[in-house]
Amino acid sequence: MSTQKSCTKASAAPGPVAKGSIRIYSMRFCPFAQRTRLVLNAKGIKHDIVNINLTDKPDWFLKKNPLGLVPTLETSAGDVIYESLITSEYLDEVYPEKKLLPSCPLAKAQQKMLVEHFSKVIPYFYKIPTAKHNKEDVSGLEAELAEKFAKLNEELVKKKTKFFGGDSITMIDYMIWPFFERLCVFDMKHCLDKTPELKKWTECMSQDPAVKASGHSVDTYRGFYKSYFDGKANYDYGL
Amino acid sequence: MSTQKSCTKASAAPGPVAKGSIRIYSMRFCPFAQRTRLVLNAKGIKHDIVNINLTDKPDWFLKKNPLGLVPTLETSAGDVIYESLITSEYLDEVYPEKKLLPSCPLAKAQQKMLVEHFSKVIPYFYKIPTAKHNKEDVSGLEAELAEKFAKLNEELVKKKTKFFGGDSITMIDYMIWPFFERLCVFDMKHCLDKTPELKKWTECMSQDPAVKASGHSVDTYRGFYKSYFDGKANYDYGL
Repeated sequence: MSTQKSCTKASAAPGPVAKGSIRIYSMRFCPFAQRTRLVLNAKGIKHDIVNINLTDKPDWFLKKNPLGLVPTLETSAGDVIYESLITSEYLDEVYPEKKLLPSCPLAKAQQKMLVEHFSKVIPYFYKIPTAKHNKEDVSGLEAELAEKFAKLNEELVKKKTKFFGGDSITMIDYMIWPFFERLCVFDMKHCLDKTPELKKWTECMSQDPAVKASGHSVDTYRGFYKSYFDGKANYDYGL
Repeated sequence: MSTQKSCTKASAAPGPVAKGSIRIYSMRFCPFAQRTRLVLNAKGIKHDIVNINLTDKPDWFLKKNPLGLVPTLETSAGDVIYESLITSEYLDEVYPEKKLLPSCPLAKAQQKMLVEHFSKVIPYFYKIPTAKHNKEDVSGLEAELAEKFAKLNEELVKKKTKFFGGDSITMIDYMIWPFFERLCVFDMKHCLDKTPELKKWTECMSQDPAVKASGHSVDTYRGFYKSYFDGKANYDYGL
């Protein structure tokens, strides 16, 4: 977790990345950047964090990544890598300690297919809070989400394992975790009521040191998301 | 290329996949399935092709891949892998001969970022032909596409190489090729007029044996796409 305030257009560019370290351009509340921070933490990779104000991006950041997205990695050689899944796999390949992706091509492909499936679940984590913010009825959306969770639950039941890649945490768990962490923040935890194995998974995940190090308290998340849905995102909320 | 007619709901399920072979469920004109067929051909992987009628899918196919999408791979052990990029990387890992992805994690990440960029170009290959079919003005869309091509052209100019990953064809070239093959079919070739290096790349690509083996004549493509835009896709056109 970083306590550094986010950089705006007015902020000076950070210095070069130290040798033996890697830098992540992040936003403290972005679930996609959190994926990469989870990998950095889980693998114990030495890194520094530069937080970006996503509504007032510095020009020097846009020069590094014209898409202006977080997460973006920068190496000490000045190379730039972005997109959460690409950065996560890159880190897993470059830092061989504590491999998160299976070495077996089939198992690796299966993890990637599950992430791909999950990409169709992610929109619910925007649609439901947005509808709630607008005081709309969300029961239909929540029922759809619970159905998607049932499919994920089936995976765990079929595999008979605690986590999605076996009995210890692997890449797939970290790639989908940031969204589950926000269930409580958005008062959506009851969507897990009919999927006990998945609910148990969220409990196991929340005990993981890398997970603990990458998140915020429910109150801090709520404070940020209130500002976000009010159209005045406070990226430094809680600092 | 397969000359096998596409399977419909009424078709009997194919037998098991032979040992030492792999099966691809494909559709002869699908650019995403073509990505995987290009990899199969380029690497000389022994395979059989089962074409699927995408508007009348067999139940046995939906049982293998509930998403019902091509490409889908099936191994002789009965394992199923889908999503064009995931299948392509899987094949490159399982069949080590003639590696298409670089082994260097940074170079591999750079290829994946370029594919990700390109995913924002793909919609133009649907929007422009659809607009043309509806006799709408496409000059605005074509100008946008030409601008996207200019960015790709820059990559080749910067790298000073014939192909996107160096002076020989690698994965990235095969992942973006199927769309360029359709420029001529959709009378969109003039979109390359201001990007000579990219145009040269298309000419080099069209000489590649795997490319030649995976495509169709312009007339065959036109016949299929006419049926497709008329809302009566003839997946067996030209057989």
